[in-house]
Amino acid sequence: MSFLKEHSTTTDINDDYDGDDKLHEECGVFGIFGHSDAAALTTLGLHSLQHRGQEAAGIVSYDGIQFFAERHRGLIGDSFTNTGVLERLKGSRAIGHTRYSTTGGDDMRNVQPFFAEFAGGGFSVAHNGNITNAVTLRKRLQREGAIFHATSDTEVILHLIAMGKEIAFNDRFMDALRQLEGAFSIVGITNKKLVGCRDPLGVRPLVLGDLDGAYILASETCALDIIGARFVRDIEPGELVVIDEKGISSHKPFAKTGKRFCIFEYVYFARPDSILEGNNVYDVRKQIGVELAIEAPIDADLVVPVPDSGVPAAIGFAQGAKLPFELGIIRNHYVGRTFIQPTDSIRHMGVKLKHNANRTIIEGKRVILVDDSIVRGTTSKKIVQMVRDAGAKEVHMRIASPPTASPCFYGVDTPDTNKLLASRMSVEEMAKFINVDTLSFISLDGLYRATGEAKRDNETPQYCDACFSKEYPTELTDHNVDGSKVASISLLAERQSR
Amino acid sequence: MSFLKEHSTTTDINDDYDGDDKLHEECGVFGIFGHSDAAALTTLGLHSLQHRGQEAAGIVSYDGIQFFAERHRGLIGDSFTNTGVLERLKGSRAIGHTRYSTTGGDDMRNVQPFFAEFAGGGFSVAHNGNITNAVTLRKRLQREGAIFHATSDTEVILHLIAMGKEIAFNDRFMDALRQLEGAFSIVGITNKKLVGCRDPLGVRPLVLGDLDGAYILASETCALDIIGARFVRDIEPGELVVIDEKGISSHKPFAKTGKRFCIFEYVYFARPDSILEGNNVYDVRKQIGVELAIEAPIDADLVVPVPDSGVPAAIGFAQGAKLPFELGIIRNHYVGRTFIQPTDSIRHMGVKLKHNANRTIIEGKRVILVDDSIVRGTTSKKIVQMVRDAGAKEVHMRIASPPTASPCFYGVDTPDTNKLLASRMSVEEMAKFINVDTLSFISLDGLYRATGEAKRDNETPQYCDACFSKEYPTELTDHNVDGSKVASISLLAERQSR
Amino acid sequence: MSFLKEHSTTTDINDDYDGDDKLHEECGVFGIFGHSDAAALTTLGLHSLQHRGQEAAGIVSYDGIQFFAERHRGLIGDSFTNTGVLERLKGSRAIGHTRYSTTGGDDMRNVQPFFAEFAGGGFSVAHNGNITNAVTLRKRLQREGAIFHATSDTEVILHLIAMGKEIAFNDRFMDALRQLEGAFSIVGITNKKLVGCRDPLGVRPLVLGDLDGAYILASETCALDIIGARFVRDIEPGELVVIDEKGISSHKPFAKTGKRFCIFEYVYFARPDSILEGNNVYDVRKQIGVELAIEAPIDADLVVPVPDSGVPAAIGFAQGAKLPFELGIIRNHYVGRTFIQPTDSIRHMGVKLKHNANRTIIEGKRVILVDDSIVRGTTSKKIVQMVRDAGAKEVHMRIASPPTASPCFYGVDTPDTNKLLASRMSVEEMAKFINVDTLSFISLDGLYRATGEAKRDNETPQYCDACFSKEYPTELTDHNVDGSKVASISLLAERQSR
Amino acid sequence: MSFLKEHSTTTDINDDYDGDDKLHEECGVFGIFGHSDAAALTTLGLHSLQHRGQEAAGIVSYDGIQFFAERHRGLIGDSFTNTGVLERLKGSRAIGHTRYSTTGGDDMRNVQPFFAEFAGGGFSVAHNGNITNAVTLRKRLQREGAIFHATSDTEVILHLIAMGKEIAFNDRFMDALRQLEGAFSIVGITNKKLVGCRDPLGVRPLVLGDLDGAYILASETCALDIIGARFVRDIEPGELVVIDEKGISSHKPFAKTGKRFCIFEYVYFARPDSILEGNNVYDVRKQIGVELAIEAPIDADLVVPVPDSGVPAAIGFAQGAKLPFELGIIRNHYVGRTFIQPTDSIRHMGVKLKHNANRTIIEGKRVILVDDSIVRGTTSKKIVQMVRDAGAKEVHMRIASPPTASPCFYGVDTPDTNKLLASRMSVEEMAKFINVDTLSFISLDGLYRATGEAKRDNETPQYCDACFSKEYPTELTDHNVDGSKVASISLLAERQSR
Repeated sequence: MSFLKEHSTTTDINDDYDGDDKLHEECGVFGIFGHSDAAALTTLGLHSLQHRGQEAAGIVSYDGIQFFAERHRGLIGDSFTNTGVLERLKGSRAIGHTRYSTTGGDDMRNVQPFFAEFAGGGFSVAHNGNITNAVTLRKRLQREGAIFHATSDTEVILHLIAMGKEIAFNDRFMDALRQLEGAFSIVGITNKKLVGCRDPLGVRPLVLGDLDGAYILASETCALDIIGARFVRDIEPGELVVIDEKGISSHKPFAKTGKRFCIFEYVYFARPDSILEGNNVYDVRKQIGVELAIEAPIDADLVVPVPDSGVPAAIGFAQGAKLPFELGIIRNHYVGRTFIQPTDSIRHMGVKLKHNANRTIIEGKRVILVDDSIVRGTTSKKIVQMVRDAGAKEVHMRIASPPTASPCFYGVDTPDTNKLLASRMSVEEMAKFINVDTLSFISLDGLYRATGEAKRDNETPQYCDACFSKEYPTELTDHNVDGSKVASISLLAERQSR
Repeated sequence: MSFLKEHSTTTDINDDYDGDDKLHEECGVFGIFGHSDAAALTTLGLHSLQHRGQEAAGIVSYDGIQFFAERHRGLIGDSFTNTGVLERLKGSRAIGHTRYSTTGGDDMRNVQPFFAEFAGGGFSVAHNGNITNAVTLRKRLQREGAIFHATSDTEVILHLIAMGKEIAFNDRFMDALRQLEGAFSIVGITNKKLVGCRDPLGVRPLVLGDLDGAYILASETCALDIIGARFVRDIEPGELVVIDEKGISSHKPFAKTGKRFCIFEYVYFARPDSILEGNNVYDVRKQIGVELAIEAPIDADLVVPVPDSGVPAAIGFAQGAKLPFELGIIRNHYVGRTFIQPTDSIRHMGVKLKHNANRTIIEGKRVILVDDSIVRGTTSKKIVQMVRDAGAKEVHMRIASPPTASPCFYGVDTPDTNKLLASRMSVEEMAKFINVDTLSFISLDGLYRATGEAKRDNETPQYCDACFSKEYPTELTDHNVDGSKVASISLLAERQSR
Repeated sequence: MSFLKEHSTTTDINDDYDGDDKLHEECGVFGIFGHSDAAALTTLGLHSLQHRGQEAAGIVSYDGIQFFAERHRGLIGDSFTNTGVLERLKGSRAIGHTRYSTTGGDDMRNVQPFFAEFAGGGFSVAHNGNITNAVTLRKRLQREGAIFHATSDTEVILHLIAMGKEIAFNDRFMDALRQLEGAFSIVGITNKKLVGCRDPLGVRPLVLGDLDGAYILASETCALDIIGARFVRDIEPGELVVIDEKGISSHKPFAKTGKRFCIFEYVYFARPDSILEGNNVYDVRKQIGVELAIEAPIDADLVVPVPDSGVPAAIGFAQGAKLPFELGIIRNHYVGRTFIQPTDSIRHMGVKLKHNANRTIIEGKRVILVDDSIVRGTTSKKIVQMVRDAGAKEVHMRIASPPTASPCFYGVDTPDTNKLLASRMSVEEMAKFINVDTLSFISLDGLYRATGEAKRDNETPQYCDACFSKEYPTELTDHNVDGSKVASISLLAERQSR
Repeated sequence: MSFLKEHSTTTDINDDYDGDDKLHEECGVFGIFGHSDAAALTTLGLHSLQHRGQEAAGIVSYDGIQFFAERHRGLIGDSFTNTGVLERLKGSRAIGHTRYSTTGGDDMRNVQPFFAEFAGGGFSVAHNGNITNAVTLRKRLQREGAIFHATSDTEVILHLIAMGKEIAFNDRFMDALRQLEGAFSIVGITNKKLVGCRDPLGVRPLVLGDLDGAYILASETCALDIIGARFVRDIEPGELVVIDEKGISSHKPFAKTGKRFCIFEYVYFARPDSILEGNNVYDVRKQIGVELAIEAPIDADLVVPVPDSGVPAAIGFAQGAKLPFELGIIRNHYVGRTFIQPTDSIRHMGVKLKHNANRTIIEGKRVILVDDSIVRGTTSKKIVQMVRDAGAKEVHMRIASPPTASPCFYGVDTPDTNKLLASRMSVEEMAKFINVDTLSFISLDGLYRATGEAKRDNETPQYCDACFSKEYPTELTDHNVDGSKVASISLLAERQSR
């Protein structure tokens, strides 16, 4: 799911402050059909997908007569465990969605799953990814009489179905899917079915599981593990699965194209214990570290991960380089999301709210820092300074991804291009900026090797790596039509309280 | 505004407890065009209309570029005075709505004003009344591809406009209005205009005011008084006024019919200081008391109002009967809306939470109690018992309206017919039930006389008095199509938290 | 109870705004011994005493083993009816307190009842009134090693007992009481007893009731009525009653002095349906109106009360003057406590949030307005202007109390003396200030007559009327020691959240 | 700080559920003198001490005239960064406290720092540890007239001072300290001074820092690091430091005894980046792993830490055993504190909310799991099962502390002795219970070696290791007087809301 550009200019108050200089996956989805604990299992599934979105979450269930929706801000473990929430989500079928958002406001309109009541019955849908022609479709649908309530691209799917000409729901749904462009992993429930679909390129993950005969769809396999479900297989790129009381059927509504799974899922988005497209994420990350140790060796005393995302690659690097792996930086896990700047003087203290260098380990040493990526570079700069303040003799930075130079249009919250350090600096300049003795990024080929490929196939790359390569695998209709600035799509700024 | 029948079976937990045995007006509306304090004035206007709905309120404003919406539970004076609320409601045009609801749930979907974005721009609308063919229209619109988000009849208006065939907004709006049946006083804003409309019978009130050149629409004149605005005139039954930068224009989209203003607005709904359809409400109420003293005289020592709604008629009765007017029942104004039953034993103590008899005044006296109406009779029974317990020698009840025997379909929350005391008992039986020595209701003609009419014109009555006479002035399509039980209209039960 | 002067300078943000220009009683107390629904009955009793304090409330119960305390902000009907509150207040004995406060802050330290654990067991106490030597006692106790936690004068009582030399609790308690100076109506519970006490002058009320054999103590009889308890008698000035399983006993710990009940309880503080010191409050108020009509007659068309407090006197005046009584001013009962100023322009609109003149009634008429008192005069000025704006030909004001020229030191929140209109203006100047044609206050003797006295006994007045006469019936030790400005007594400003 | 045993029987609802089977340090303290950002720096210091207590926190500051207190539930980063909190904490001196509590209730009475106003001025105090004769002292003080408000042992200190006979504050304070028995690291502020004190054995840590000339006291050095302060030295066991405008002075109020620092601070309580009593915590933990690899070697494929507390020892073990270190268990850091059991079926799924085994890494492997300690064994059992379910061929558990068989009376929340697995099972039985192939604990001597000692001096041990050895270094007066069940100390159960 992604937000169509709004008027709203709310900025992240923690912007420079919270030290979270990462790209963010915007959603996780989950669906289950035929289990008496459907809503509770969806809650657990979403909890294990919490790393894909922490802002808000929603669950819609169906009990054979009525649909039930709950949408709440905050972590699943807090908001969905209040008295009554699960009791109200009756039925043996449910879908859920967890959302990361940059808007920060109080706008609950965009919390998925979305629901629509068609003449033929109800339909609820949740989506991970981004539809790159959503604004264009929205304008067409509005001219045809559709009234939109939210600003999320997901709502377009509902109106395409409502306005569809076909009679059978499946046909209308496939007709709607064929009009979409971009990246989407979708789960939905109707009065009769649970449906799941991945876009033709399979940019975002979606897996199929089984728990005591109940089918499950989820963004990652870790959502199967938490409830003890069996991992059956990945939903294939371009595949639509339809699950009902008779079982599961597979459809291919799209023209066949090559697969282009998002390689950044391996680098940072996915949980290390997930298995996606045949690879264990932790394993790929460690392997990147091994590759980095080969590509960019350096004489040093110890390897220190930038916690927590740099840990697997650092383990791989240390093993590859035969250097000791040490926790030279300690992370404070109690930093809440709301740690706002108390005073100006404290705002400038920055990164230490989250991290502290362990002087005893670092002092007088030649340190190799390993991190997963550099986005704006602000955190890296602070971390390096902290390590130097702790007495490191040398600081070498090794990054487990190529330079991130281009925005993602497929459901990832990327800063403006000009804020991406790699878009305006060479590696040398970056090294200087973050003040390290040496800086190396894994090569694109090295990254592909870590996933098990021999190398990147530059003709038809095996992955979507547009944030590194600028090679976007789909049309970008809204973007190209409107130029760099997507037109505002909602005239309404809304706030509610209960 | 009215709610289409939902699956939800939430019952009022205070049902027998809070002693509020009244019919309830379901809404108040307000709109203003061309004042720099538009939202603040709307807040005040809604505050003075709070008696028409205390559950939740909403305001939508427009600043020439964007619409801003705030919807909050609770009293205006609490929810709309929080930091930032008014600041966010930018612009010189605004409409507002205050709502009484029987659902009791947490469902914010139905809080008005509603907003839709058409291909040609935004439109926000709020409504007092009830559209008696809303379910029928909704089903038709859904078949045509409309997706409804709420269960309020108001949303039908938006979809009728969105699906309309006319090109100009005014034409589409009038086309939509002509498809509506029932009672409606509507205010709306577009990018350019403030619009206001009353149904052809003028069942619900809507008045026009002026503040320093800014036009105002409001349910009652008391909403003009609070902001020092001048009362211009009532919007006429069947009239559509359109206010824009050039001024005000009047349209008559409907075929001409006789006027049928709701006579219960005089009896109970409206505020005593309002002037509606040429009559001051307090004056009518006092006059009903005077008529009652003529129609149903009784030898007694003092006249005691059931506070607060019985006060004006009691003053009139006392003046007419030349008996002393005394506060023999004291009301506790601190009863919050949330005074729920602490224990079973306390639940049975009932009415005293709100009222207490003043023994010193009542003991040994022949008391005439005056109240505005009897709905279920539960409160009357308790009040009479309380007055007897305080030592009254005789208790005579005089009611300032005829027996309420039939439900209202025009925007009033009426209990099921079989709960209306007058629907299953004669006046004599009622007197026995509530345990009074004598009981009299004003006659229909007496009530009409109090409004200045000579008598009720039984051919074409001057007012809507269906709750007394069962003569409904409009079609009741949904009701007649579906029988006594209106079909469920939403498949979704929803809950949100922020 | 009263607050010792604190550093805190929090001002009432609604100061000039909310139109509440009244003196405020600061507390109501309630106690019950030997009823299985003790806490629930206390809740109801406090609810009926809500007019004596709306800021916060507390209840302490005892179940034979342990004491249970609940202290909450806001109205009883809201805060004490939440799930679990009454369930946690176990036991058949309870005391409660409702509090009005000028501090406005978040300081829960001062919410009564207070509790202390002595070597011999627990004791909880609540207090209505003000101890005029509390600061002096506090300083002495601190020097002796006492640690105070709150800034309320009530805590002094606990430390006097804790530090006492007597062995039996009763003796210690009486010893403590004898050290107090000022006005106090106290209820308390120990492991064994319910105690109640009034100061020697009986300035604040305290009544004894009986419900099915359970004894009840309450500030007013309306708290007995709400639970159907029988009014036994007033606790006498200077009386200490001790209620335990064996029954009730009466003690007289103080030297005998004349009774000086607060006459303002009749004028405004008490509820009209209460019977205090042998008089029904409504009756006294109406009688004041009758006296006023004799003392200050005027040729006019109608009598209009300033709602709600002016109503009884206006009824009396109208009956006395044989003029029609009319509701010429309508009050909006939905004004929440939190209606803060949205904007500067609205702040200036002032009084209409609460009141509106009913033009139809007033226009062209000579109006007699009747109110209970004039404190700062701000509201009166606005009301008169509103009535003039509504077209009144003449406006005459009649006030049901003498000019309020001096502060109260006995548990009433009085503005600084220089803010009392009567302290700096003659009646003539006041008439000009509030812009009335004539202004009259009831005379002191007239007021005494309304209570049944022949006249005020100027040697030893039958009531405390210091706010009118400046004749204070007790020492004012703290005041006299420290001059007009009582010394700050707490070094701590505290805030908590849960 | 520690809670005196209360009547309250609230149990931890997450008891078996949240997988947190750890001993818990109960407090962290912080103090600063002479910095314009005193409160903000205290907030940061407490944030870095959050691992020592997450339930609630308090800060008291002093601005030369008045003390300011803020006490809030929840994480510092959430509760102390709300608007206004730091603004209200004026002044250049402050102390703070963060608290872990087992009571779980809403009782804010026990949130430190505590404050008392003595005849000579204000004093605020916060405390880490536990006073083992607090109940005995409390009873004596109550007999002398003291009124206690909380149930924390800390309040005893205040009353000892208030009741003291000495004239100078320092003398009174030292007199009070000498009456205490147990473990205590105390910080306090008066009108003039910041004071810090450790008990004669120095069981709990307390360090001295310096930031631009402002002195700082804190439980651990990581609280100095976060604000860039310089670590000066540990406060010595039995030392009292007094900091005022003239500088710092050191006092020794106690008779000299040997030092007995809590060795469990190294094992688990302290943050890995802190330096306590001369040792870096991470270093000690890694060294324990190295010792374990020597003491209890095993042939295996990989070393897997139980995250996060087992990581440093696992790194040491892997380095010592020359085996690969792998993240075979992934932790979900989003588990909120409130993840309560949605349904019974989910409650039984248990540990996976926090952890998931990484099957790809573990399957078919001989795994050495390393954890810091085993308390009740419930989590270990679940973790082992999870690792076995993920396909491990063998599972060997190595524990970085000796068997925890005895309760701590010095400020650590220990389960009842019979719930400590080691108190009722041999190592062999424990191995069977948690279902591992082999289980080894580090020996006491091995643990001492890891801290740099040659071995444990069994005559006068260098550390307090009573939880392993049952050798308590102080009297346990309350415990011995009252038997295993400490007498209830408060008669009051209290609840507040704002």
